[in-house]
Amino acid sequence: MRLSRFFLPVLKETPSEAQIVSHRLMLRGGLIKQEAAGIYAWLPLGFKVLQKVEQIVREEMDRAGAVEILMPTLQSSDLWRESGRYDAYGPEMLRITDRHERELLYGPTNEEMVTDIFRAYVKSYKALPLNLYHTQWKFRDEVRPRFGVMRGREFLMKDAYSFDIDKAAARRAYNRMYVAYLRAFARMGLTAIPMRADTGPIGGDLSHEFHVLAETGESQVFLDKNLLDMPIPPADTDFDGDLEPIVQARSAMYAATSDVHDQARFEAEVPEERRMSTRGIEVGQIFYFGTKYSAPMKANVTGPDGKDVPVEMGSYGIGVSRLLGAIIEASHDDKGIIWPEPVAPFDIAVINLKKGDAKTDAACEELYAKLKAQGKDVLYDDRDERPGAKFATAELVGIPWQVVVGPRGLEKGVIEVKERASGKTEELSAEAVLNRFAK
Amino acid sequence: MRLSRFFLPVLKETPSEAQIVSHRLMLRGGLIKQEAAGIYAWLPLGFKVLQKVEQIVREEMDRAGAVEILMPTLQSSDLWRESGRYDAYGPEMLRITDRHERELLYGPTNEEMVTDIFRAYVKSYKALPLNLYHTQWKFRDEVRPRFGVMRGREFLMKDAYSFDIDKAAARRAYNRMYVAYLRAFARMGLTAIPMRADTGPIGGDLSHEFHVLAETGESQVFLDKNLLDMPIPPADTDFDGDLEPIVQARSAMYAATSDVHDQARFEAEVPEERRMSTRGIEVGQIFYFGTKYSAPMKANVTGPDGKDVPVEMGSYGIGVSRLLGAIIEASHDDKGIIWPEPVAPFDIAVINLKKGDAKTDAACEELYAKLKAQGKDVLYDDRDERPGAKFATAELVGIPWQVVVGPRGLEKGVIEVKERASGKTEELSAEAVLNRFAK
Repeated sequence: MRLSRFFLPVLKETPSEAQIVSHRLMLRGGLIKQEAAGIYAWLPLGFKVLQKVEQIVREEMDRAGAVEILMPTLQSSDLWRESGRYDAYGPEMLRITDRHERELLYGPTNEEMVTDIFRAYVKSYKALPLNLYHTQWKFRDEVRPRFGVMRGREFLMKDAYSFDIDKAAARRAYNRMYVAYLRAFARMGLTAIPMRADTGPIGGDLSHEFHVLAETGESQVFLDKNLLDMPIPPADTDFDGDLEPIVQARSAMYAATSDVHDQARFEAEVPEERRMSTRGIEVGQIFYFGTKYSAPMKANVTGPDGKDVPVEMGSYGIGVSRLLGAIIEASHDDKGIIWPEPVAPFDIAVINLKKGDAKTDAACEELYAKLKAQGKDVLYDDRDERPGAKFATAELVGIPWQVVVGPRGLEKGVIEVKERASGKTEELSAEAVLNRFAK
Repeated sequence: MRLSRFFLPVLKETPSEAQIVSHRLMLRGGLIKQEAAGIYAWLPLGFKVLQKVEQIVREEMDRAGAVEILMPTLQSSDLWRESGRYDAYGPEMLRITDRHERELLYGPTNEEMVTDIFRAYVKSYKALPLNLYHTQWKFRDEVRPRFGVMRGREFLMKDAYSFDIDKAAARRAYNRMYVAYLRAFARMGLTAIPMRADTGPIGGDLSHEFHVLAETGESQVFLDKNLLDMPIPPADTDFDGDLEPIVQARSAMYAATSDVHDQARFEAEVPEERRMSTRGIEVGQIFYFGTKYSAPMKANVTGPDGKDVPVEMGSYGIGVSRLLGAIIEASHDDKGIIWPEPVAPFDIAVINLKKGDAKTDAACEELYAKLKAQGKDVLYDDRDERPGAKFATAELVGIPWQVVVGPRGLEKGVIEVKERASGKTEELSAEAVLNRFAK
């Protein structure tokens, strides 16, 4: 993408309303623009990252055997009356009346609707296990929306729902999501720790929250430091196999949010030098809640014994739009965002130091074309701007690699390659630059 | 995808509420499920097609130089008061009050919001031309939602917005979208005819609707038959070049919806044997409306002469979810849907005629693995079902190719390949099947 044809409205000033660094950087870097309290438009750069995060989550859901659907944003209140949550949910639910005075709501979550879909079609245990997921905009009418996309009102969530014939199978479904979550967050460059957690308004008796550790996190968390070094299950993990050992290896180590923290147990189980108390940003939560929705909504399946039983369910959420904030909180410096490569909006920024200089322009055009042909997503800064402004933009928006082309370097036959994260630079020939970024 | 692990709830009975064939087939084929009047959940097969249609539109928008963003579904009423449309829009606008009694609305279109984004950042003609687009769910509270996704209330629309310094540049922006639309619809296997149209509530003085011709269309349309044979601009069309000849070649020929039809002109301009009067399904509309929004909303840019002028705008919509209905209306038979290959949910159905027969299972598994490795999207019907049920499902959901594997064929060393559209069959060796579907 040529920057002259892109839309990257970088701000010079730090917006005063932003209290945390991710919010500041997303506004300054032209990733988002607020359109109402807690409601954001995603500008091109932010949208590109949002798509990459969504795609990583999708790939890991698919790998774990979940099947993608798309439920609508608006729901009928009738479904929520069936489960008993319509009145219970409170003022965070955005309630809407249509022109025919029918009650709708903007879905804050989809347990009821997916149970309705399930019961409409599935009657036998033979169709199980089943896990249906979607990535859709949700709305929660927070009293005080703040921290940008970290606590917005309209937010993008991936939510998956598992259906199984009995508790043992439901536990296997839970484990598949637990492992998929470890993989998804790791692929985004995050260290996300699963922690035992309260089940809250979703209900149920087993739940883990996945927390990214960051000083700015909203939750106090307590954990065994050894959890930081646990290996991530590989891409060829057999999701039909027994995942219990992977889950147990982590569950055996203490990790809890303040809601469920037990200091006495923490001290008894974890040697002092391994005790860690820090802040966490919740980026996902998984629940096993059995028949909480299937029983009142009569989502029954016939078992192998011919008897009807309410289907066993769990639900599994990832805050896709929130993840952008969490990644930035975990990965930035005083110059701006440092995107981990798998979620970076562009892989490489080609920086033309002297637009209008024929040799520099030609070298940039050639690199731009060839790097693109090598499958790289390249932002070519072809603007008529000072080098300082170009460097500042590339650093602010966190492109992992800068390829800097100027007349002085070209005279010596070299191009500078700079890594955003480390700040390290190398001088390479054009050919070596292409080899450096070969597939 | 193994059908045993997919979620494809095919219905035996035709749902009585569906009045048109696309609605019936989408319900019967397990593509959608109604969740409230005019509000649908997209089941896995429907969602796959929706994504393919969205992706074709995206690629053609990008090719034409448009830049993708994502605006939220909910908007503040304040913006619509600035343009004067808040009161004018009427009961089709879903108006919402949040917990703080602030007025929101579910966006039926985004002229106001995109103008607000533009004016926040762009001050100079140097940033132009600019075209920002997004694909997002919209809501229009239709009095009588009907015909499934053809006239739903919550629907997916791609809407693009162009910004230019003067009328001549705005006309070039309009032409780029005109050509992009021709390409996008053609890539979906549709014959879509641009027709002069009323501008309606969007306003402006130049507009074309793109209509797919189908007996079940809701609009009466009149056109010169020669339009059916016009060539589609190729992929390497230069969108920076002069597209006026492409637009003029079509505009010179009569094509109009009944709203603006002039029978006398039709008869004067089109020889009788080339006059065609039929029904059309509107799948897209493009508008040039100049300063209708930029003037009241003060979206001004400084021109080369140093003077501020309101930016010249156009908007360009494609009904992404509606397109699935339109494609089915245009391409089906009495057995079901006939998806054009570029939008088909799967490229190939591998049909196992005798699940449990070791040789048949092995042959199917090998074909399934190898066709996938060749980059094909394959649905492997590995269910323990009668062949008749498997054929009926494959025909109903319209997979372009069936690869039929059974013990009798295997004894002769052959596999049957059937084309859904023509019904033609060939008997091929396994190797020839793979060659048949080589990249």
